[in-house]
Amino acid sequence: MADTEKNLVIFDTDPGIDDAMALLFLKAQPSIKLAAVTTVFGNAEIDVTTRNALYLTQRFRIDVPVYAGASRPLTIARRSAPAFIHGEDGLGDAHVVDGFIAEPAGGHAADRMVEIVRANPGKVTILAVAPLTNLALALQRDPGIATLVKDVVIMGGAFGWGGRRGNATPAAEANVHNDPHAADMVFTAAWPVTAIGLDVTSHCVASHADAAELAESGEAGRFLWDISRGYEALYQRRNQVDGCCLHDVAAAAYLVAPELFTLRSGPVRVVTEGIAIGQTIQKPDGHSFGPNAWDGHPSKLVAAEADCAGVVESYKAAIRSLG
Amino acid sequence: MADTEKNLVIFDTDPGIDDAMALLFLKAQPSIKLAAVTTVFGNAEIDVTTRNALYLTQRFRIDVPVYAGASRPLTIARRSAPAFIHGEDGLGDAHVVDGFIAEPAGGHAADRMVEIVRANPGKVTILAVAPLTNLALALQRDPGIATLVKDVVIMGGAFGWGGRRGNATPAAEANVHNDPHAADMVFTAAWPVTAIGLDVTSHCVASHADAAELAESGEAGRFLWDISRGYEALYQRRNQVDGCCLHDVAAAAYLVAPELFTLRSGPVRVVTEGIAIGQTIQKPDGHSFGPNAWDGHPSKLVAAEADCAGVVESYKAAIRSLG
Repeated sequence: MADTEKNLVIFDTDPGIDDAMALLFLKAQPSIKLAAVTTVFGNAEIDVTTRNALYLTQRFRIDVPVYAGASRPLTIARRSAPAFIHGEDGLGDAHVVDGFIAEPAGGHAADRMVEIVRANPGKVTILAVAPLTNLALALQRDPGIATLVKDVVIMGGAFGWGGRRGNATPAAEANVHNDPHAADMVFTAAWPVTAIGLDVTSHCVASHADAAELAESGEAGRFLWDISRGYEALYQRRNQVDGCCLHDVAAAAYLVAPELFTLRSGPVRVVTEGIAIGQTIQKPDGHSFGPNAWDGHPSKLVAAEADCAGVVESYKAAIRSLG
Repeated sequence: MADTEKNLVIFDTDPGIDDAMALLFLKAQPSIKLAAVTTVFGNAEIDVTTRNALYLTQRFRIDVPVYAGASRPLTIARRSAPAFIHGEDGLGDAHVVDGFIAEPAGGHAADRMVEIVRANPGKVTILAVAPLTNLALALQRDPGIATLVKDVVIMGGAFGWGGRRGNATPAAEANVHNDPHAADMVFTAAWPVTAIGLDVTSHCVASHADAAELAESGEAGRFLWDISRGYEALYQRRNQVDGCCLHDVAAAAYLVAPELFTLRSGPVRVVTEGIAIGQTIQKPDGHSFGPNAWDGHPSKLVAAEADCAGVVESYKAAIRSLG
């Protein structure tokens, strides 16, 4: 496949264990060309997520520049990083990054995002699997990019499949909860958005047996096994799930297999105060209400359901193919 | 069945078309003895809902006192009554109440609620299918009733079945939206609460054919047919539903057929500000989060799913039995 036919993707990420899974999944896709990896605070602090992105791209020979972005949310205070989920080092404290040092490419992630979109009008998909701060900063710096982006695909929010609404709080998913103001800007901007929420990604579980099988299949699978031992144990303990939720992978899978997702259209707003701060709420198109905060905002797509077995199979095939 | 074996019920209501359906449903239940009908603003103003409750009890020979309650929410301003749903007269503008005048029994609904609970410790179920203002006022006047009530069963809120969250706004169900502060008091008090939310009741639809069949079965069915013509047309137009949602009936059905409902346990809070005002959010028991606004509040039950065909059958059998 010629590069010009490929889907040009900016991967905005905070690695993060499932971020690493998603990056390796992307590497395996012949239809995707990564234009940039942009990093943001979230699963760990910005220095850590940037180092991890550099480590992952170098170790797995992914030829893409890594640009560092926001270290904190737009408006609210930075919450502490969830070391109990992703480890102090953001990659499961498996000692894979011990002693690794590298410098990101020059320039702020938001500026580079703007440049890449401007240089490739109508061709760039931003795949964002982290707090949406970099995307909001890019919109602030150049609102005109909204009409030049091909698609914005997000792992974030929760839209109600199975009644599920949050992991950070009972109301809010962590990426959106980490910067609700940025998320509200991203969801109300004039660009297309497709959100794959926690309610969907929580059902996309690579089982312990799946992970063990991939660990035998080659370096990539072995690496993901090594970094995900604590992550898997946490899901087992907290969510009674036998395996790892492929949150970020599910959003990446949408890029290559959109047919696995059932989408629902309607404006999305984010709660920015009170007990539900960080909650995403969609007003489904075709339902009428009294005057409300969704009026006048453009419709976005959210995953209402997904073929999660299909997502897991797609993930397994991708990691296996890396050898 | 001797009266002493019956389930003693205070029916807190704002008739309202589906309130009328629920009241006639309750009349048909041999296991239920109504201790009081208490009225509140909501589907219409308090004078209208009180008159309608008096009309319904007199016309259908339901031997129960009607006490008038709150005319407005605890804290927020009263929103305009939804005449486009229940009619200017609260009963479908079918001229059934034209010229009817009657006086409620003496005393405020909240005071009478307290008295009845105190006089029958451990025996009273409050079935509330309207804004929860009367219940909150009763708690304010006598917090001790919380431990003396048998159960509080609510038609209100929305908890996510099928992703559904609201009808008043994309986030909020009308009863809770009408007085979010009262609802938060009721959901966080020390009494048991079982909430049958809009997400469940929206699936409990008596079809046009069901209503037509009941209209032929006797006076009650004919009356309900007459008052629900506009209500049914509205559901058809707004929600693409062929028939009437039995919102309040579903909560009443829980009293006599709890096996039709799948319940989920966990503390419930109500959003009292911002774009999601009036939204109900449950923290399911057994899921852990960081510190949050649900911590320290007692678990309540919410309907996660229901056998809605069973609810409709139960309703039809009840109305048919009235002749």
